[in-house]
Amino acid sequence: MNGAQAVIRTLVAGGVDVCFANPGTSEMHFVAALDDVPEMRAVLTLFEGVATGAADGYARMAGRPAATLLHLGPGLGNGVANLHNASRAGVPLVDVVGDHALAHKRLDAPLESDIDAIAGAVSGWVRRSLATAAVGEDAADAVAAAQVAPGQVATLVLPADVSWSDGAEVAEVPDRRPAALVPPAALDEVAGVLGESTVLFLAGDAVTEEGLLAAAQVAAGTGARLIASTFPTRMARGAGVPDVPRLSYPPQAAMQELAGTEHLVLVGAKEPVAFFAYPDLPGRLAPVGCAVHALSRPDEDGVAALRELAERVAPDAVPAVAALRRPPLPTGALTPATMAAVVGALLPEGAIVVDEALTSGTHLHAATAGAPRHDWLTLTGGAIGAGLPLATGAAVACPDRPVVSLQADGSAMYTVQALWTQAREQLDVTTVICDNGAYAILEGELQNVGARSGGERAGRLLDLGSPDLDFVALATGMGVPATRATSAEELAEQFAAALAEPGPHLIDAVLRPAD
Amino acid sequence: MNGAQAVIRTLVAGGVDVCFANPGTSEMHFVAALDDVPEMRAVLTLFEGVATGAADGYARMAGRPAATLLHLGPGLGNGVANLHNASRAGVPLVDVVGDHALAHKRLDAPLESDIDAIAGAVSGWVRRSLATAAVGEDAADAVAAAQVAPGQVATLVLPADVSWSDGAEVAEVPDRRPAALVPPAALDEVAGVLGESTVLFLAGDAVTEEGLLAAAQVAAGTGARLIASTFPTRMARGAGVPDVPRLSYPPQAAMQELAGTEHLVLVGAKEPVAFFAYPDLPGRLAPVGCAVHALSRPDEDGVAALRELAERVAPDAVPAVAALRRPPLPTGALTPATMAAVVGALLPEGAIVVDEALTSGTHLHAATAGAPRHDWLTLTGGAIGAGLPLATGAAVACPDRPVVSLQADGSAMYTVQALWTQAREQLDVTTVICDNGAYAILEGELQNVGARSGGERAGRLLDLGSPDLDFVALATGMGVPATRATSAEELAEQFAAALAEPGPHLIDAVLRPAD
Repeated sequence: MNGAQAVIRTLVAGGVDVCFANPGTSEMHFVAALDDVPEMRAVLTLFEGVATGAADGYARMAGRPAATLLHLGPGLGNGVANLHNASRAGVPLVDVVGDHALAHKRLDAPLESDIDAIAGAVSGWVRRSLATAAVGEDAADAVAAAQVAPGQVATLVLPADVSWSDGAEVAEVPDRRPAALVPPAALDEVAGVLGESTVLFLAGDAVTEEGLLAAAQVAAGTGARLIASTFPTRMARGAGVPDVPRLSYPPQAAMQELAGTEHLVLVGAKEPVAFFAYPDLPGRLAPVGCAVHALSRPDEDGVAALRELAERVAPDAVPAVAALRRPPLPTGALTPATMAAVVGALLPEGAIVVDEALTSGTHLHAATAGAPRHDWLTLTGGAIGAGLPLATGAAVACPDRPVVSLQADGSAMYTVQALWTQAREQLDVTTVICDNGAYAILEGELQNVGARSGGERAGRLLDLGSPDLDFVALATGMGVPATRATSAEELAEQFAAALAEPGPHLIDAVLRPAD
Repeated sequence: MNGAQAVIRTLVAGGVDVCFANPGTSEMHFVAALDDVPEMRAVLTLFEGVATGAADGYARMAGRPAATLLHLGPGLGNGVANLHNASRAGVPLVDVVGDHALAHKRLDAPLESDIDAIAGAVSGWVRRSLATAAVGEDAADAVAAAQVAPGQVATLVLPADVSWSDGAEVAEVPDRRPAALVPPAALDEVAGVLGESTVLFLAGDAVTEEGLLAAAQVAAGTGARLIASTFPTRMARGAGVPDVPRLSYPPQAAMQELAGTEHLVLVGAKEPVAFFAYPDLPGRLAPVGCAVHALSRPDEDGVAALRELAERVAPDAVPAVAALRRPPLPTGALTPATMAAVVGALLPEGAIVVDEALTSGTHLHAATAGAPRHDWLTLTGGAIGAGLPLATGAAVACPDRPVVSLQADGSAMYTVQALWTQAREQLDVTTVICDNGAYAILEGELQNVGARSGGERAGRLLDLGSPDLDFVALATGMGVPATRATSAEELAEQFAAALAEPGPHLIDAVLRPAD
């Protein structure tokens, strides 16, 4: 068996049976080997950022890694932004990057590139496979590395001749090691500081249904407040699940939400800091003098720690959970508020919501808190252009669940090619473009950083008009049926229709300014 | 003056007065400063790969660098593929990458990233600016570094607080140092080996009009053959210019073209090697035993060397140049051959042709050799997705020249967002999509690498159908008027109409299989 065949068989044996691919010449043996291993599902994307973002979305929902197949340094470069997001999200991802044959590298051919340097910037594990006889082991190590808790990007650089040569063997992937238990001292420390001026700051496994229920039990019994991180990887939400607010993105708002906190307890989370520095604002968001404690690190078992804590400090407390309660269907102007109400009124049971709505999404949390049970995926690493790929991968992972992709217009354009893959694979994704015709988040940021604004030339760099983007044309050009909504009623009608039909749909929601 | 203002003023003073931008929060002071320095033209792109490719195309035509404005590691990552191409093309480019404020970096905020590692992979020069007082000097050094012969990517990492703080000064950019003269010994060596079994292999400045004329004079006087590199940065072509063939991309064809060569003389070129390794094929393309000589390295003055050589070995020889001779307008089926004939028949005087036609472009060279004088830009670094951005930048550099962008369909999708910038800036670009519905180059490569082909699952990864891409819808969705041609007559009519009108146009040329 050749190297490519051994890699694919090893991946499949290790539970990695989906590959989001953008192959080139150096990956042709990998492509040919797909016909030998029908257990591997290969999904073609038209741009590498779609492949890496889809692999992220897949892992968030499947709980195990997908593979990517990228072409040399430039292909990896195109995938960097969403590998960054995956890395920050702590998801497992096996990133396979083809390279020149070993003897060809010294010739400095036009596509020769420093793959290792680029991979190192976004991977927790990097290995260049150097021998066909060992490539199966390399692939197995990559799968194992990807699944080191909580999950990381493992990049396997695969030279063409290592792929095409015979003499490879399938290797066994060791069982995934469970996340470490938190040390008793951490539990003791946290148990001693719970009270009304304490905030449990939740991310990672702490925002799964199990984590939230245990955290809410602690809160019910001690008066501690719960706040989730701004952009969690995957958050359980809806009726029956504790309704936990996420820390706001603007630092002033976040600081207000944390005001009065004397003890900040991190559960699967890092200490909250501002996304960006601003003149005259601190970067750390907790109040000065607030003590910071870690119940669980991202690589530890936060759910077990929360359950043990609940058992110890609040054994009889009942966690507060959201009741089933939807907003009424709105009428009139289509605004961020009425858009959110439509989503809240119609969100189906078991939906996966991918939220890259950014400034248009401020009303979504409240409007959907009482919707039927669903999961919420966010822009964890902050690199825009994740939403459409995340939705694509989530839909591949969960073909029986509806995916709702709420997507800011400017960010949508970074990886708009994802729509074609949704059409090819006939994925059940309903995309709502939050179309405000601007990089609205930057209009705010221009003022936040204290830059003098109002200039016409600066404004032109934040404006998506002249010409307006026509997302209906873009979607239909890639095979996704699309409509345009300019009122709350139209959005409701189109959203319901899209959810009722299988396959991908896109709705261009033309929003009036935020209300 | 703040750091951002000093950077922009320094760039402008150094001749860098166009900036292709994709800003984020950390670049907001740079954006605000644009209103203070109207000499800087900022061009918004919707994706960073468009910005970097446009800066490359600009530099190829303007002969001086443009700047980019990118957002942290993920934004730089999105620009990597076309920075790779620019780097391989040896063009000057000032790559400005915003970063977090210095004090913010230690907080490991979500967008914290290893910018330096990624930049190092695609830059000849990298500097992180660390103090507002010195940022003007840093910018001046970046402009100077970008213009080290033949040109390189110079990346300036610009922390937000270095931008927003006051106390910066404009710095002076030293005059560009001319390329080094070749040592006399190199001339002597080459003069001694010229004859009918000698090939002058030309790239860089050797394929400018001056270089080609001098090379053709040498050829006329000595019997040496001329071959240009496969993907030159910018090649002078058309009536009045020597018609020099480019080395073929497939290695078997390239080896045939070089067969019988006893002396290979590199002029501004590196030794020709196969783009990729293939089982049982050598990587070096020159015949075994062929002596390789360097007349000029890429950083040396090849035109002066060729002129001196011509004066020495062939002072009275007359270079052969192409006569004005166009193919007749074709009729009937639209194929790569008839598409090429339409381009040859109608290409306007002074056109800039951007050629990422790949497999559909095999007939273009012959069909356009006798067209009026034009320039030809190619995929120098081999990373697909350069064409539409190159055309965008070339049109910004040369508003009075028509740009013809011949673009393979699969490659077009990597940076299709360039069309929006062409519409916003009303650039005179006529894009012809070579629409064969496949990654046709990979269909050939699958066989070239000896991979067993014909499998359905492998085939699906090379096929762009299911669903078909509708480039007319995609273009109109981004504000570019578009039509579809399915016959030679339709293409001729639409191509002529597009050339006759200012502003961008796109023609989806639906090609039958290669003939």
